[in-house]
Amino acid sequence: MPTHEGPRTVAEHLAEVLALVSALPAVTTPIDEALGLVLAEDVTAPEALPRFANSAMDGYAVRAHDVAGASPEHPVVLPVVVDLPAGAESLTAVTPGVAARIMTGAPVPPGADAIVPVERTDAGVRAVTIFAPAALGAHVRRAGEDVAQGDLVLGAGQELTPYRIAAIAAVGRPAVRAHRRPRVLVMSTGSELVVPGETLRHGQIPDSNSYLLAAAARAAGASVVRLGAVPDDPDALRAALSSRADVDLVLTSGGVSQGAYDVVKEALIGLPEMRFVPVAMQPGKPQGLGRLDDGTPVLALPGNPVSAFVSFEAFVRPALLALRGLRGAALHRPRLLARATEGWTSPAGREQHIPVVLTQGEDGLEVRPAAIRGSGSHLVASLAVADGLAIVPREVGAVAVGDDVAVVRIAP
Amino acid sequence: MPTHEGPRTVAEHLAEVLALVSALPAVTTPIDEALGLVLAEDVTAPEALPRFANSAMDGYAVRAHDVAGASPEHPVVLPVVVDLPAGAESLTAVTPGVAARIMTGAPVPPGADAIVPVERTDAGVRAVTIFAPAALGAHVRRAGEDVAQGDLVLGAGQELTPYRIAAIAAVGRPAVRAHRRPRVLVMSTGSELVVPGETLRHGQIPDSNSYLLAAAARAAGASVVRLGAVPDDPDALRAALSSRADVDLVLTSGGVSQGAYDVVKEALIGLPEMRFVPVAMQPGKPQGLGRLDDGTPVLALPGNPVSAFVSFEAFVRPALLALRGLRGAALHRPRLLARATEGWTSPAGREQHIPVVLTQGEDGLEVRPAAIRGSGSHLVASLAVADGLAIVPREVGAVAVGDDVAVVRIAP
Repeated sequence: MPTHEGPRTVAEHLAEVLALVSALPAVTTPIDEALGLVLAEDVTAPEALPRFANSAMDGYAVRAHDVAGASPEHPVVLPVVVDLPAGAESLTAVTPGVAARIMTGAPVPPGADAIVPVERTDAGVRAVTIFAPAALGAHVRRAGEDVAQGDLVLGAGQELTPYRIAAIAAVGRPAVRAHRRPRVLVMSTGSELVVPGETLRHGQIPDSNSYLLAAAARAAGASVVRLGAVPDDPDALRAALSSRADVDLVLTSGGVSQGAYDVVKEALIGLPEMRFVPVAMQPGKPQGLGRLDDGTPVLALPGNPVSAFVSFEAFVRPALLALRGLRGAALHRPRLLARATEGWTSPAGREQHIPVVLTQGEDGLEVRPAAIRGSGSHLVASLAVADGLAIVPREVGAVAVGDDVAVVRIAP
Repeated sequence: MPTHEGPRTVAEHLAEVLALVSALPAVTTPIDEALGLVLAEDVTAPEALPRFANSAMDGYAVRAHDVAGASPEHPVVLPVVVDLPAGAESLTAVTPGVAARIMTGAPVPPGADAIVPVERTDAGVRAVTIFAPAALGAHVRRAGEDVAQGDLVLGAGQELTPYRIAAIAAVGRPAVRAHRRPRVLVMSTGSELVVPGETLRHGQIPDSNSYLLAAAARAAGASVVRLGAVPDDPDALRAALSSRADVDLVLTSGGVSQGAYDVVKEALIGLPEMRFVPVAMQPGKPQGLGRLDDGTPVLALPGNPVSAFVSFEAFVRPALLALRGLRGAALHRPRLLARATEGWTSPAGREQHIPVVLTQGEDGLEVRPAAIRGSGSHLVASLAVADGLAIVPREVGAVAVGDDVAVVRIAP
């Protein structure tokens, strides 16, 4: 049953996958719960920062002129008129000939124009002996030197890392508008699949794809409803889909190729927006995509574990990141170049996505295929040891030792 | 009040921090909940995989000899004696002169020694017309070709990525022994700190460090109790510590330097195992480390947000990863080399950890300091835009345009 449509490129298929999804609605989220979410608003500084001139050091606020000649041999002694811990509200001024004891972050008192660090003094409490001069403005953080009022701190579309959350807290925002996390329904299909740990009859194997795809979707920032394995029965599959939780994406594995029992294809091919198409990719050639009747996007991956794995990376992860509100280059893992330490072949006319092991060599990153035994794509070992994927262009038929290869890192 | 102990190197301090922690106890964890945990056991294959020879393609199981001369011009027609979907338990044999229809993953029937892909046939149901020969063993996944019985699939100490979880499922394990996640208590200190969004009096600023450290600890795989900001009052700090939840690590910011109100130092310095030490690092010089009376490890970071940020990366993140059960190089982000596109200075005798922006240039990774305005370490902007840290060795006083600099990536 050859298809009547020629294979599309990986890039063409990805573009069609991404056309199925858009950023999910924004919700107001406390910053303490916002890690990993994506901003749905621009965050600007409501006031200049620092709000007030403050000390960058523990020490003494002085008039620079008063300590201009200070040295270990000729120290300057000044009375201490006020003690300024961080958070001090005192407005006591430093007039000529006096000092204020000041802690890091405390407001620089009126009249003072320099800070002498405590290490250059005798650390006195009622009077201080100062052993060094201070330049005008020394160790003073000027009001507004960090951020001006109205400055853009973070733009919509940025992922909220710990350090970005700290920046939002620092401008006084307790919550932000962020895109909500995608909810994903994950199922594998195949009458041969049983729950891991259950007794296997002849012809049966443990379901691994539903665990793979659930964990990969979680790692990509989604919350997951994992249905497990559905048998090769279109009615069972349709029943599972019709009783499903409210989700933003349905993800299946298996049942999408040329076989007589391709359950996902059989159950969904009648839907007007579903298509089952060949992609010029190895592994991962048969792919399904489209929408259920209610508009929910569906990505139907091939069932071979390594095919499901590379299909997830190539198509599903970018789609999940787009649902989260990311855009452009942020949808993709950065591509690196690595030097092949083993050669391998790649099929003509298909872009190869092959699990690899990456190691840091003396001259840079090195790459070799993850499959140690055999040569099929059905390799548990590939899944266990791979920490990257190599992407070999369609027109390249073989990678030789020493070739530079494009790779992405998939493990921490 | 100069310290009576000379500064230690970053590496020396890190070694002392890591000596405070060890991998947390292992718990049996369902694989569906194990993402990001670290294996506390070796996982071996209880049986060889595949358990049975199976088909790598949808097609027909044949005897290779029977189709040796098949071609489009001279096809071979064989009766189909059995239909083998995935999961089939049939033991019907393929005798000379017959074929079995077979789906990907189904057991290869006794007597068959090759698979003809459906694309090279007329896809017949009762009889099949075959247009191409098949080599002995073609498209057959041999029993045991993936993993031998007893083979190590994953070793203790490895982090459970989606693909490793799939490998564990594939060998039939429903659960694994994994180190439990660390629980961390996070607080910032400083009487000037208020909850973001609350009205600020003169001298007050929003607390950002407790959000920074909580999010960073979560991103490093910990679960977090965030206490928020504690005022500069040793009794308040001791009260907060004594009423705390049961945690594996206490993390504080602020109150560790030379000032007169250094609350963490004041509250904890009497404990026999606590030390407050200078580290030859910029920023991040003052650091506290040790144990509470009950043995709980404490890491006391400086309070400047950028100092807290780089201290977390240098010391706390490796400690959290060690609590999770990781070891050796896995405790550290991989160091990359990047070419400086701006110059900057670095203090003599101190290893500089500076927030940077990384960009992919034509000739590789490029780096520039994240601080755009001003020059202090108190820069919200640094936190907002940094996606990496540059590490400049102690003996280097300046980075010039074009220099290669060691960097780590801190954002996705």
